[in-house]
Amino acid sequence: MKLAKWAQNAKPSFVREILKFTQMPDVISFAGGMPAPELFPVEEMTEVMMQAMKESGRYVMQYAPTEGDPMLRQVLAQRLVADHNPATADDILLVNGSQHALDLIAKAFIDPGDVVLVETPTYLGALQAFRPYYPNIIAVPTDAEGMVPEHLEALLAQHQPKFVYVMPTFHNPRGTTMGLERRKQIVALCKAADVPVIEDDPYGELRYRGERLPHLRELWDQAIYLGTFSKIMCPGIRLGWIVAPPSILNAVKLGIQATALNISPLTQRIAALLMKRPTFDQHLDKLRKFYGERMHVMLDCLKTFPEGTTWSEADGGLFIWVTLPAGVLAMDLVPRALERKVAFVPGEPFYAAEGGESCMRLNFSNSTPDQIREGMGRLREAIATLMPVKK
Amino acid sequence: MKLAKWAQNAKPSFVREILKFTQMPDVISFAGGMPAPELFPVEEMTEVMMQAMKESGRYVMQYAPTEGDPMLRQVLAQRLVADHNPATADDILLVNGSQHALDLIAKAFIDPGDVVLVETPTYLGALQAFRPYYPNIIAVPTDAEGMVPEHLEALLAQHQPKFVYVMPTFHNPRGTTMGLERRKQIVALCKAADVPVIEDDPYGELRYRGERLPHLRELWDQAIYLGTFSKIMCPGIRLGWIVAPPSILNAVKLGIQATALNISPLTQRIAALLMKRPTFDQHLDKLRKFYGERMHVMLDCLKTFPEGTTWSEADGGLFIWVTLPAGVLAMDLVPRALERKVAFVPGEPFYAAEGGESCMRLNFSNSTPDQIREGMGRLREAIATLMPVKK
Repeated sequence: MKLAKWAQNAKPSFVREILKFTQMPDVISFAGGMPAPELFPVEEMTEVMMQAMKESGRYVMQYAPTEGDPMLRQVLAQRLVADHNPATADDILLVNGSQHALDLIAKAFIDPGDVVLVETPTYLGALQAFRPYYPNIIAVPTDAEGMVPEHLEALLAQHQPKFVYVMPTFHNPRGTTMGLERRKQIVALCKAADVPVIEDDPYGELRYRGERLPHLRELWDQAIYLGTFSKIMCPGIRLGWIVAPPSILNAVKLGIQATALNISPLTQRIAALLMKRPTFDQHLDKLRKFYGERMHVMLDCLKTFPEGTTWSEADGGLFIWVTLPAGVLAMDLVPRALERKVAFVPGEPFYAAEGGESCMRLNFSNSTPDQIREGMGRLREAIATLMPVKK
Repeated sequence: MKLAKWAQNAKPSFVREILKFTQMPDVISFAGGMPAPELFPVEEMTEVMMQAMKESGRYVMQYAPTEGDPMLRQVLAQRLVADHNPATADDILLVNGSQHALDLIAKAFIDPGDVVLVETPTYLGALQAFRPYYPNIIAVPTDAEGMVPEHLEALLAQHQPKFVYVMPTFHNPRGTTMGLERRKQIVALCKAADVPVIEDDPYGELRYRGERLPHLRELWDQAIYLGTFSKIMCPGIRLGWIVAPPSILNAVKLGIQATALNISPLTQRIAALLMKRPTFDQHLDKLRKFYGERMHVMLDCLKTFPEGTTWSEADGGLFIWVTLPAGVLAMDLVPRALERKVAFVPGEPFYAAEGGESCMRLNFSNSTPDQIREGMGRLREAIATLMPVKK
């Protein structure tokens, strides 16, 4: 018995080990990227389920079109257009969450050895989705706004990559946002090189301050857009979507057939009915209010951290990226934090090659303000134990 | 913009085109493999949904363990053990339907150029799942009971394949079943060669006559088993499962993380609650009664087909495999059948290399007995137009 090489080489996930620890009582977790369960619209969800079963029980229980539920594609298209993200129902394919989207993009594009360009750091799950297809993942040097254009330009010319993967808004893990000028530069470079650029946008609706910025598809209609219901509705329905030009959607569709036949018409109809309700926007307002408060509480706590601690000033999303004082390594901090029953994800797994040794990702959505204050206190203590003694 | 080679080479699916045609009014379809929607347990499904939301709304809406819902793993393990299919909850991973299982098996095992062995013909969806990983798919010569042991033995020795993929019970597309002796021979050969054998078993519960035969895992505890809720519950929840030894499950688990993060806890809990009901076995009895009747009606109709027509004597499942009289090609029959508003799938797509030109797959689960009689009459007429004129 012999597994594929990527599986033979895969190390047990350190992040998964930390997440297991967060299941224990009394642990305050800044580790995952989970929405707040107390904010889930449980009652409305129950109502639309009943509606779906009553109105179309046999439809939602049967096999369904590969492209997705026609009602959901329609509702989504309307919502995207209202958000200045140009799309018709035909430009959208539903998938089993953003992670499935990343797998399908990798499957559609990557042959072994093909180059793909990512930010550094980048989303851990994207690296996990890409690696089984054996790409050559190259990290483009990145500043506070994302990929640095000069480096991107050089790497595009040098490697003719299959695609460029970016997270322009409320980046995971860094929390930061790419400004308008940078968006234009990145898009212009990809367009000139005829290389698809993928905007992964799980948190775009979760802005707590500042003005919205255009989606990459507003700047170039050949850009690929990945969206998800996990943060605006709930992760449990495992639903996301891809917007792309027809030739790419066609390959993604073959991928859906190969990996899932079709996506559940039940969960799709539930999402469509929930999104059609006039209360859906009120729900999003509520999420922004609660999460925004939590972010500000966490940012305030950081001001009390040992000198030399720096962090990203996020305007939305779920994460703050913290750089520890010189000499303090995040991997050393993990056990000291876990001893004090507080959890976070260290920076290294978010780097395609190396980096992030002194960084940590903190999630604020899944803890109450009081838990955040308590947990940040514990974390500050843990850091203090690792601070170099002043001479 | 350049897609992966498999996607560049993929032809538009002829089968999908036929399935589109079946959506038209008055068309009688023997083409898909769809369960009968009028037999779906709509009311019970609605009840368990309510129960899931009431008892554990916030759990089913949140992210969930990669391994699957603990309640469902437990219920499934009990059911498998009762079916002499040895498994504990820990041996089971839930996935997004059998198609996802096939993708995950391919991802866990196949590096480009690796050999995998399949029956001929074999399940079309398996070929679609495997191909994006660039395997060398070799078809093992197959008789009415499945792979011929002498050929399998030679190919195992020659190629050291990554795995052997079989459908021993109510084969898709052939409808046939591998006998006990053949099962023992196949397992003994794979065991001796230390090559995993995969039993794909979507229809095992749908036996209409004859005695049950052992699952391959009863004969070798290292065999891999793929099951699905699509035929025993409904396809719309997109749920299946994999039973395998720990080292393989571990690689599959990494694949689940890479392609889905986790499977919907909502659909899993619904399936667990439905399966726990005492009425679940009555539901299966009902399916067997109705589908069995439909199979017999179709077999009776075949007796009136032109001389030279032969077919498999299925004991269960959803399909009958028909070989047309000499000189009649299934691809020529497709348009003549569609003209008469009856649809079926021709044999060729089920062959990894070539074959099946004179064969067709007929589904009987998704038509009433009257529709089957009418549709088979139309098909007989269509065949008659292609019969060589007797001299």
